[in-house]
Amino acid sequence: MHVVVNAAMSADGKLSTHDREQVAISGEADFDRVDGLRADSDAVMVGVGTVLADDPSLTVDDPDRIAQRGDRGDPPQPARVVADSRARTPPDAQILDDEAETYLVVGERAATEKVERLESTGATVIAAGHDRVDLSAGLDALESHGIDRLMVEGGGELIFSLFADDLVDELSVFVGPMLIGGRDAPTLADGDGFLEGFPVLDLRDVEQMDGGVLLRWDVA
Amino acid sequence: MHVVVNAAMSADGKLSTHDREQVAISGEADFDRVDGLRADSDAVMVGVGTVLADDPSLTVDDPDRIAQRGDRGDPPQPARVVADSRARTPPDAQILDDEAETYLVVGERAATEKVERLESTGATVIAAGHDRVDLSAGLDALESHGIDRLMVEGGGELIFSLFADDLVDELSVFVGPMLIGGRDAPTLADGDGFLEGFPVLDLRDVEQMDGGVLLRWDVA
Repeated sequence: MHVVVNAAMSADGKLSTHDREQVAISGEADFDRVDGLRADSDAVMVGVGTVLADDPSLTVDDPDRIAQRGDRGDPPQPARVVADSRARTPPDAQILDDEAETYLVVGERAATEKVERLESTGATVIAAGHDRVDLSAGLDALESHGIDRLMVEGGGELIFSLFADDLVDELSVFVGPMLIGGRDAPTLADGDGFLEGFPVLDLRDVEQMDGGVLLRWDVA
Repeated sequence: MHVVVNAAMSADGKLSTHDREQVAISGEADFDRVDGLRADSDAVMVGVGTVLADDPSLTVDDPDRIAQRGDRGDPPQPARVVADSRARTPPDAQILDDEAETYLVVGERAATEKVERLESTGATVIAAGHDRVDLSAGLDALESHGIDRLMVEGGGELIFSLFADDLVDELSVFVGPMLIGGRDAPTLADGDGFLEGFPVLDLRDVEQMDGGVLLRWDVA
């Protein structure tokens, strides 16, 4: 499986304000680029914190891209994946709508009642790990469902966990022309953080857009 | 006064690990650039957290740059400034050595005993603000001591406070080819964070060096 992490952060590395309010960090050019990345993916993944904070749909907008997916025999929309250890995704979340297939990767200890309610929306629930999702096992299970190209859109907790488990191949970061600040604001990679064995990145290219810079890194 | 903030952060916006251990984020090219920036400044400022964590000297290394400063009638080294509300700078800190002049900007409520001990090292103590340093008043006082070009090297608490008080003219950030992660790791701009009125930045230029990218922003 090939895993691409994509996110927009402020010039100081924040994904949103400390009260988790989304901020328009990028603009039209970056939105279009993200739409293209989604269209090129088999699935788009977020952590449950992002579902609870932003209620994203994660679908491709551009009709041409949707048509091109059909032309090559793919479903019109990439699947959506939520890393959701305790099955906290609300049953009315947009990510569970009929626009695309949805996978919820939960821990084995997630409450059966919650899991069943989520399955009743048509979503596929994958159990991997106990209290917390085992991402490596979860990604293996997704691969067995035909997901070979996975795009990850955050948040910082999921991104850190994927790096900690050495599961990321590429990192695309739009660095926007603003400062958000805040010692408690979500950053591109949160979690416990590394103290040694820092993931090493190779800069593949740099592109100016929307007043900011897109940095594309390969994970060494 | 012209205020330039300069820092090196990981690709995810961190200045160091969550236990405040310094990490080599940049390399020789960036060190040399920072040395040049210091040489072009009347003073180099940090917050007391940086003094306590890293014990920096903040001096110019390159003998040619030191000589050039002398040629244009400047002292061989730029002054050092610590924003230090409670006068916590240790009297044996490198920043208080004889290599350059040092200013400590403290709150009026800082303990007299501590202030006197710091003055006895030869440093100039400036009181500005009560419990916390009033940065605007502190910078005005520094200007009256002839400091017109001020370089700020962090940490994230001081950088946030300077942006919050609208005192920053330029921001130079080296984004390094590594991930540090950590929801509690120091970032480029910590403090309480903005919820609205985000500082807007204009990208002046982008330069690849040391495997990462130097982003230079003007504050709009």
